[in-house]
Amino acid sequence: MGKRLGPQTVRLERPVAVTAAAAVAGKMEGEGPLGECFDRIVQDALFGEDSWEKAESHFVREAMERAVQKSGHTMGDMDYVFCGDLLNQCIGTTFGIKDFSIPCFGVFGACSTMGETMSLGAMLIDGGFAEQVLAGASSHFCSAEKQFRFPLPLGIQRPPVSARTVTGAGAAVLSRKGEGPVIREITTGKIVDLGIKDANHMGAAMAPAAAALIAAHLRETNRRPEDYDYIVTGDLGRIGRDLAAELLAKEGFPMDERYTDCGILVYDPQKQDVHAGGSGCACSAVTFAGYFYPKLRRGEIRRMLFVPTGALLSTTSVQQGLTIPGIAHGIVLESGKGAD
Amino acid sequence: MGKRLGPQTVRLERPVAVTAAAAVAGKMEGEGPLGECFDRIVQDALFGEDSWEKAESHFVREAMERAVQKSGHTMGDMDYVFCGDLLNQCIGTTFGIKDFSIPCFGVFGACSTMGETMSLGAMLIDGGFAEQVLAGASSHFCSAEKQFRFPLPLGIQRPPVSARTVTGAGAAVLSRKGEGPVIREITTGKIVDLGIKDANHMGAAMAPAAAALIAAHLRETNRRPEDYDYIVTGDLGRIGRDLAAELLAKEGFPMDERYTDCGILVYDPQKQDVHAGGSGCACSAVTFAGYFYPKLRRGEIRRMLFVPTGALLSTTSVQQGLTIPGIAHGIVLESGKGAD
Repeated sequence: MGKRLGPQTVRLERPVAVTAAAAVAGKMEGEGPLGECFDRIVQDALFGEDSWEKAESHFVREAMERAVQKSGHTMGDMDYVFCGDLLNQCIGTTFGIKDFSIPCFGVFGACSTMGETMSLGAMLIDGGFAEQVLAGASSHFCSAEKQFRFPLPLGIQRPPVSARTVTGAGAAVLSRKGEGPVIREITTGKIVDLGIKDANHMGAAMAPAAAALIAAHLRETNRRPEDYDYIVTGDLGRIGRDLAAELLAKEGFPMDERYTDCGILVYDPQKQDVHAGGSGCACSAVTFAGYFYPKLRRGEIRRMLFVPTGALLSTTSVQQGLTIPGIAHGIVLESGKGAD
Repeated sequence: MGKRLGPQTVRLERPVAVTAAAAVAGKMEGEGPLGECFDRIVQDALFGEDSWEKAESHFVREAMERAVQKSGHTMGDMDYVFCGDLLNQCIGTTFGIKDFSIPCFGVFGACSTMGETMSLGAMLIDGGFAEQVLAGASSHFCSAEKQFRFPLPLGIQRPPVSARTVTGAGAAVLSRKGEGPVIREITTGKIVDLGIKDANHMGAAMAPAAAALIAAHLRETNRRPEDYDYIVTGDLGRIGRDLAAELLAKEGFPMDERYTDCGILVYDPQKQDVHAGGSGCACSAVTFAGYFYPKLRRGEIRRMLFVPTGALLSTTSVQQGLTIPGIAHGIVLESGKGAD
């Protein structure tokens, strides 16, 4: 039974363990600073398939199978799978998980998906509905560019504020019992819309939602930024991270270097042509699974606030002149011996 | 704390009340057999907006506001909102709920969305994470045709197996306490893919998932079809309903007239040009909220199994030759004095 700490935050009665996590990423992600952290790097953007969309599903399948294997369980031990992606009607997810034969819940939270899947999975476990839940999210640079922007062969120049969609998938196994870092609190995002309309400037569109979520979390838990080793947003990138930090300072929560963003960590801006950083559902999913999860596991991080961020737009909404509302979901993870 | 009855089914520890439901539907739905059941019928397909997509969001907003008002609560009393739709990146949902300022979870379950939102909402309440949850789903004939099929002005003939996407939105307020029918059990669907590829024949694509869900539910609860006043799938239509019944008979669960489908109920096939029936997220959402919910409330239905169904496809997946996997989510509702 969860305990409500405030309008957006609940504390789990018994911490839910993250017993395994896996990240499968693309070539460019493999060449970035986190390359050595990933379970597998796939050089071929098509992953042996004949379309980028099928490749994305392949990333999902591979990351989920690896996470389950690392947890010491089999797919049949998973009571539910939660997954989502950016493709129209979430086909990356559907064709990635369809043969698992697990009760499944598709989610759509744009790039905040990993936050949504982990939040809901943890609450179902704490609520007594599941022993194990598989949670994941994916994105693919090529399928996303094709769908949201321009055909890749056009080679359109991107503005400096734009980010690069991370190719890959991340997955985590959440368990009532077992070894691993634990999920303690969950702060669920409200949609925040400050009227940003530039579809290339996702960092600006999402920063207000990220800042609002972090501020709400700190207020409702009665904590300060210093109580966390890391506060990590999902895919704001360099510009969005600084905007969020500026908004947080105005809210009375000045941030130092403990606040970073997965979109900053995943690529090397000096060597890689990524402009503002990384983005996409996979940005937070693979950075969490590959980089932060092992640090939690080893006790190098005692407590972190993981805040995947999403921009809620479609080509249609942008073409119709609508704004780009943002959302963010927060999860507190602590190093620990597990849930039992 | 839920109790697990089997691989797909959980029983809520304390039944969750559905304290209110509201359905807002379009002109053609208003002219159908359920016309008098809806809270509001909107004659204008644009709902006063300048695009069908914005109109769909307007349906969402209106249905949700009416459900909350009918429940005697205010929007601020809702701890979470769960919602989803068929539009790319679920913009029907985003722009429908964005100003509510409630922690929100977007879901994607294609036309099974109402089952997913009610399932997750009920589990969060039973798990102690919420007092009230707002759950809803929407679809719109015009925005769906435009996105999935052909521009409407072309006036393309549709094959006899096709269905008509229901225009509207349904919403329900789920509560830990309060008057109303209750949710007792939840059976969560697995993706079922028998290889159907005809994107006009959704009934056939979804029937195997619906039949598998109902059979799993009956086995795991150790019940027979006769234990329900109604077993109601979401949007299989006439052809799909009969296919599902055939599959269920083979599983040892012969169905009589107690098994029907929202896609059969929502239109009059003699007077309305709807071919196989109704479809879309709103098909099950408005039929539940407008037609079945009041019957449960008045005690005319003692127990029903509500099974929203979804076809997991996109134009891209169909164009790439992929199959159309189906999914279905089951919820047992019983008449009752409420949850407390």
